[in-house]
Amino acid sequence: MVNAIITPHGHLDVLSKSEIAELHRSSNNVYQTLFRNCALAVLSTGANSDDGHELLAAHSDFDIEVMSSARGVKLKLINAPANAFVGGSIIAGIRNHLFAVLRDIVFLQDQVEVWEQRGETITDMVFKTLRNARALKPRKRPNMIVCWGGHSINKTEYDYTKEVGYRLGLRELDICTGCGIGAMKGPMKGAAIAHAKQRISDPRYIGITEPGIIASEAPNAVVNELIIMPDIEKRLEAFVRMGHGIVVFPGGAGTAEEILYILGVMLHEKNRGVTLPLVFTGPAESRAYFDQMDAFIGATIGPDAQSLYRIVIDDPIEVANHMARQMKKVYKNRRALDDAFFYNWSLTIDESFQHEFIPSHANMAALNLKKDQPAAHLAADLRRAFSGIVAGNIKPNGIDAIAKNGPYQLDGDQEIMSALDALLASFVEQRRMKLSGEYTPCYRLK
Amino acid sequence: MVNAIITPHGHLDVLSKSEIAELHRSSNNVYQTLFRNCALAVLSTGANSDDGHELLAAHSDFDIEVMSSARGVKLKLINAPANAFVGGSIIAGIRNHLFAVLRDIVFLQDQVEVWEQRGETITDMVFKTLRNARALKPRKRPNMIVCWGGHSINKTEYDYTKEVGYRLGLRELDICTGCGIGAMKGPMKGAAIAHAKQRISDPRYIGITEPGIIASEAPNAVVNELIIMPDIEKRLEAFVRMGHGIVVFPGGAGTAEEILYILGVMLHEKNRGVTLPLVFTGPAESRAYFDQMDAFIGATIGPDAQSLYRIVIDDPIEVANHMARQMKKVYKNRRALDDAFFYNWSLTIDESFQHEFIPSHANMAALNLKKDQPAAHLAADLRRAFSGIVAGNIKPNGIDAIAKNGPYQLDGDQEIMSALDALLASFVEQRRMKLSGEYTPCYRLK
Amino acid sequence: MVNAIITPHGHLDVLSKSEIAELHRSSNNVYQTLFRNCALAVLSTGANSDDGHELLAAHSDFDIEVMSSARGVKLKLINAPANAFVGGSIIAGIRNHLFAVLRDIVFLQDQVEVWEQRGETITDMVFKTLRNARALKPRKRPNMIVCWGGHSINKTEYDYTKEVGYRLGLRELDICTGCGIGAMKGPMKGAAIAHAKQRISDPRYIGITEPGIIASEAPNAVVNELIIMPDIEKRLEAFVRMGHGIVVFPGGAGTAEEILYILGVMLHEKNRGVTLPLVFTGPAESRAYFDQMDAFIGATIGPDAQSLYRIVIDDPIEVANHMARQMKKVYKNRRALDDAFFYNWSLTIDESFQHEFIPSHANMAALNLKKDQPAAHLAADLRRAFSGIVAGNIKPNGIDAIAKNGPYQLDGDQEIMSALDALLASFVEQRRMKLSGEYTPCYRLK
Amino acid sequence: MVNAIITPHGHLDVLSKSEIAELHRSSNNVYQTLFRNCALAVLSTGANSDDGHELLAAHSDFDIEVMSSARGVKLKLINAPANAFVGGSIIAGIRNHLFAVLRDIVFLQDQVEVWEQRGETITDMVFKTLRNARALKPRKRPNMIVCWGGHSINKTEYDYTKEVGYRLGLRELDICTGCGIGAMKGPMKGAAIAHAKQRISDPRYIGITEPGIIASEAPNAVVNELIIMPDIEKRLEAFVRMGHGIVVFPGGAGTAEEILYILGVMLHEKNRGVTLPLVFTGPAESRAYFDQMDAFIGATIGPDAQSLYRIVIDDPIEVANHMARQMKKVYKNRRALDDAFFYNWSLTIDESFQHEFIPSHANMAALNLKKDQPAAHLAADLRRAFSGIVAGNIKPNGIDAIAKNGPYQLDGDQEIMSALDALLASFVEQRRMKLSGEYTPCYRLK
Repeated sequence: MVNAIITPHGHLDVLSKSEIAELHRSSNNVYQTLFRNCALAVLSTGANSDDGHELLAAHSDFDIEVMSSARGVKLKLINAPANAFVGGSIIAGIRNHLFAVLRDIVFLQDQVEVWEQRGETITDMVFKTLRNARALKPRKRPNMIVCWGGHSINKTEYDYTKEVGYRLGLRELDICTGCGIGAMKGPMKGAAIAHAKQRISDPRYIGITEPGIIASEAPNAVVNELIIMPDIEKRLEAFVRMGHGIVVFPGGAGTAEEILYILGVMLHEKNRGVTLPLVFTGPAESRAYFDQMDAFIGATIGPDAQSLYRIVIDDPIEVANHMARQMKKVYKNRRALDDAFFYNWSLTIDESFQHEFIPSHANMAALNLKKDQPAAHLAADLRRAFSGIVAGNIKPNGIDAIAKNGPYQLDGDQEIMSALDALLASFVEQRRMKLSGEYTPCYRLK
Repeated sequence: MVNAIITPHGHLDVLSKSEIAELHRSSNNVYQTLFRNCALAVLSTGANSDDGHELLAAHSDFDIEVMSSARGVKLKLINAPANAFVGGSIIAGIRNHLFAVLRDIVFLQDQVEVWEQRGETITDMVFKTLRNARALKPRKRPNMIVCWGGHSINKTEYDYTKEVGYRLGLRELDICTGCGIGAMKGPMKGAAIAHAKQRISDPRYIGITEPGIIASEAPNAVVNELIIMPDIEKRLEAFVRMGHGIVVFPGGAGTAEEILYILGVMLHEKNRGVTLPLVFTGPAESRAYFDQMDAFIGATIGPDAQSLYRIVIDDPIEVANHMARQMKKVYKNRRALDDAFFYNWSLTIDESFQHEFIPSHANMAALNLKKDQPAAHLAADLRRAFSGIVAGNIKPNGIDAIAKNGPYQLDGDQEIMSALDALLASFVEQRRMKLSGEYTPCYRLK
Repeated sequence: MVNAIITPHGHLDVLSKSEIAELHRSSNNVYQTLFRNCALAVLSTGANSDDGHELLAAHSDFDIEVMSSARGVKLKLINAPANAFVGGSIIAGIRNHLFAVLRDIVFLQDQVEVWEQRGETITDMVFKTLRNARALKPRKRPNMIVCWGGHSINKTEYDYTKEVGYRLGLRELDICTGCGIGAMKGPMKGAAIAHAKQRISDPRYIGITEPGIIASEAPNAVVNELIIMPDIEKRLEAFVRMGHGIVVFPGGAGTAEEILYILGVMLHEKNRGVTLPLVFTGPAESRAYFDQMDAFIGATIGPDAQSLYRIVIDDPIEVANHMARQMKKVYKNRRALDDAFFYNWSLTIDESFQHEFIPSHANMAALNLKKDQPAAHLAADLRRAFSGIVAGNIKPNGIDAIAKNGPYQLDGDQEIMSALDALLASFVEQRRMKLSGEYTPCYRLK
Repeated sequence: MVNAIITPHGHLDVLSKSEIAELHRSSNNVYQTLFRNCALAVLSTGANSDDGHELLAAHSDFDIEVMSSARGVKLKLINAPANAFVGGSIIAGIRNHLFAVLRDIVFLQDQVEVWEQRGETITDMVFKTLRNARALKPRKRPNMIVCWGGHSINKTEYDYTKEVGYRLGLRELDICTGCGIGAMKGPMKGAAIAHAKQRISDPRYIGITEPGIIASEAPNAVVNELIIMPDIEKRLEAFVRMGHGIVVFPGGAGTAEEILYILGVMLHEKNRGVTLPLVFTGPAESRAYFDQMDAFIGATIGPDAQSLYRIVIDDPIEVANHMARQMKKVYKNRRALDDAFFYNWSLTIDESFQHEFIPSHANMAALNLKKDQPAAHLAADLRRAFSGIVAGNIKPNGIDAIAKNGPYQLDGDQEIMSALDALLASFVEQRRMKLSGEYTPCYRLK
């Protein structure tokens, strides 16, 4: 355990006296627990566990304080995990992640309240959060590939994600993921090697997370831009507005949530003219996974959704070549729409995908999983269903709620429920729900 | 005359769609005239006149528009002065100044309203305005010398300001002035040569102006950071919070206003522990000027104020050596006070120096120019008196008011009034009130 | 296969017309084969084989030409391995390696002849070769760790080298190796991850090779500074003059050569005051290797040599901490000796370690492997013996000579010969002599 | 007077031990006087005198020593002029100039001897000297304007050279001159202001001098790249091979020498296809100067030569626009000729313009100033005549020779001699020969 005082680099060191005082106050009150827990997650990078409870329990004596003076802000760490330090100094990348937490959890969430009072749109809030994180870079051509997929994947799949990342990196494409392990780490590691070979001096490995999952999915060490969005919906919007292409690897409930999100969004008729390439890919051994996912999509939101993605099995070079080619189309599309390269304003996102979904037992039971509605609406509620299952699996709040009230109840059309049943059963069987130990489902299908 | 479309560099190119729309709206409504006139002033750099009316009249067909799209903001110029362009492209420095105007006049003044609603202090507003202009640089040692003095000075005096700037620059000190000509330009020119000799790659020539005077005192071409503060009082506060030392050259009513401001502020007992070196200097020929100024100060706010500055005649090297030595003291003082180097939070500024003074005839007549009050209070009202005289001399609003209502009436103690009379008469005689033509006083002393 | 024309970046693009003409001439005559083969090795990075013959045979139709014009030099590639290209463009790192080959093989070796005529010392030639490669960086504190060890090591050992590299990198130390695979690649890979975590923007991964081995030990992809020294002795001198500390991992004959080289040099009495930390390290499973190596050193050149190194088993953090501490001693030592940080002029290297040793059968047979001589002399001849064995194992010339004349004959004192026999037998048994296939010894001990 | 020890920045800090030893030896023997005198000139920047004798006499106790150690080279200054220092530290630009002198006078001239032994061409020597000074920048488009003209020009002419420099600088053109005062300083000062306005971060102000004139024409302070060529002929070749365009202002014998040089070179029939724009320009008041120069050229080397330049009177913008347009032609021409942008290899320079001319009385008397020879030959000898007159006017050796042997004797065709007489008389009359005092001609025309 280490005690230390840390000084920031970046724009937090030009705060006004009242901002610093407010930061001090907030971090000690409103956001105290959230800030402490996220900071702990960041300091524990490399500790492999997807159970946030475990981490918190193991470091119950950890604490963090914001120190204020006219000279600027500093962080005081008490009983911090020793592996974040070398020779008495904090590792530079971890220091940066720590100040990203301060910036996004304490400083920014105060702002969010102001924005809400002013009635700003969620799209504007996402924009301002990303801008505040200096993540929007003008005058850079489209090259940001969002990679989605599970944290709990097997060795073959992990190696495959690295290889895809490597091939993307050789083509000078950057990587953005959800910033945990598994499919969120592999593409970054692969790309990092390729970027080094291509002598790229400013590669971007963006990790976008949210307070609910950061404790169970700590940012991997390759991430050089960490962004903590206020909730899962804003995180999903950040992915699709910053990304210029999306690659989906095998995964569990979280990946299914992401797939339903992007398909639901792209089904909006106003988005027909928007170019956003989407590829599902995995090694030969994972072919069945995508067959099943494709069948589930066909059986629920239908063939229009199936036409929105391409499935590539066991061919990292083709994935990378496809994305490299598509980047040119994205470039032309943005210019044609007179849109920025760094933020996809043209994409219309329905409110049903923007507002926070609290996975209470009542909200879960109330989801409309029936076919007598537009496909995009069904996608929205299916997305919520998977979001709830993720919460029940790994988020501290969700786990507690399940422990108290038993599994979530989900109901809907026969056809949809059986497709859902088959998909979830396969996730369990393929061990995609949890890193280790036996998995007890947090849901019950009627 | 040239028509052109200009694209910004800097942080204005990461605006949200709603910010751009708001910018477009504001620039076409609330701030239209102000924005247009300031832009015209910037585009006319190099045109020598201190009569804002003249400039505006000469370019009555000039116009500027903010163009908006999701891709970002652009400026459309119609009938712009041709000398701002070379080979069809706008000169890079002028482009930067133009976007500084947009940033500070349109974008920021919208913010100022929000700040005012929220009840932020003026000191915080000044801080945020400077931060928004990227003028606050952390981790840089004290080296910013504010140079005050007249726009209408003679050749000997102008050459002297250049020489002082040269000697300051050789000691790696940066320059901040009010950004017009005369004593506001000379020190920058001199420092620029010295910085080149010292191979300094990022010298700073900060020009701080305000909407009322920019038209008559266009930013000189050496300025590489242009900042437009909302009013004269915030401009003065910006000088003394950013500067680490102040050099005063000969000048007229504006310079007298600045001297009374800093003396009034420094007389505050809470500022006794704050180090802020202050030097009055000029060539041998200008010795009488400082004798008279010193006498005026002694006769009005008294000997305590006289102890706050040092007068150095005809010795640029001593001025520079003194400032170089003092910078070390400022460094220690800031550390002792746990204060930032880039913003002097420790300085207490009384509200009487912070609130905007509107020089109406009534307000001018109501000034309390009597000795039966604390010296700092008298300094505050004397400062306002000179501020009004500057307005009556060169600001469009002031000139119009004088034309309509005749000269301002000032009244007070006999001793003060005769000291004031002597000082103002000498300004007129020495041609410090106006660049050319006969000067008609805009005031009458009772 | 790919045909392409490649343009250099760096100082080869400021050659005079006559230099370009000379380059063109040399590359087509004197150095043609050497240049072609080294270029092929560089283009084949990632192909795993330690048999140079194989590589050459597989690409018999590859060719490379220097194209000349007043505008500068270009390279024309014919039938180049396709894996060096992405999307029709050569990978930037490989391009850099290619021009390093041109610089060091063609351009520089011409210079070497001139230096030899002028009677320059070998130490000066090594200096100038490194300077020409821009490898000598003034004003940088000692932090260059040379890592030696085998190309054919097992997975446990390889992972250990990565871990040591990682721990060195976290302490902001750079890595220099012989630039092939195995222990030459692992430390660089580990350090690269650590440097990324520490946000180090200009890490150095220096690979120093020589024409005889580059074909069988192609530079790994992490190397960002490739240097080809004229012969094995100059390569060894480059290591010890540029390095500030040396870590030795398990290896075969080549590693033994390196160990005997540094011990022989450090035994020189003039080097007693020179600080150059030397650590032998490996995982727990490799303890026997170092026991045997230590015993061999004790039995041959003796206990003085044994006192020059430290053996650390299974403790990467201790290795890294030791080196980090020693860097401070090296810093002080260089200052005390008034020596440069970037080149260890103070180190005295006896001519017996500097002159090229041609491992003909006659020269090998003539080696003096007896104890009746100073330890440093014995170390010199033992070094030559291992150098010959490396040649017989992997260098095209050596392999051909063995094929023609049978194994080298080595003779000496009974005690030395049996120590040598035991060591070599263990190398064979541990499969350290060759990547794959059965190993047939290229030597016979009398 | 100041004593100080100075450390270099740049490539002199990576010298080998033997190079440093050699530098030490040379600077104390062969080049001692030359090195000392040039160093003194550099340290005296700003002292206005064109009499080298004066400067040397005023600082007879100044000395400079090269100090050597394995750590690198340092300079020890004894009794150096105090104005080169501020606050005890040498001004950075002067330090750079000082090490340029060391680099070019001591280090390089040793090299020149080697080159001469190897039989390198003068063109290659010029190239290597410039490369050693890091003056050849690849991948930069043509934009280097060479400005020639007198050191002794009147205020109107000087202001005009500044204005031309300003207009060139606004068009992002760099400046190269002979690095003294007058027409060699004005264009740089003007360009520096324009480059600052255009926010150009790496402007080039190249000063090319030679040991014979540096003492009387110290590099002005704006020069940020100082190059000392071995003799006047190599200096002239450096100008025309590095420059992309040439502007000639009014001047005296030195300017006439330069004009005859470039005209003689361009008359070579092999240079017909080489684009090198040449403009003669001055204020309206100097029209007579160019009329006379044009008449002299017509009367001596003839109308072909007259067609090689354009005369522009009193129009700085036209000069700059012309050069900006011509830069595009130079770009195309270089590409068409497959030539480098940074060195004009295509230009053929006859040996009569390359070999050093020693202006002894015998050599001057032997010049062939007759019309019965090709124009280029006549230009070559006329160039030599003016070169001798410059030496007699300002170079220490020349002044001494004249003092001892009386004026040079020149003889030739009647027509040529009277044209020469008229031209020289006008130089004397217009005070172009000498900064101050009465001018006594150093020549006699028969």
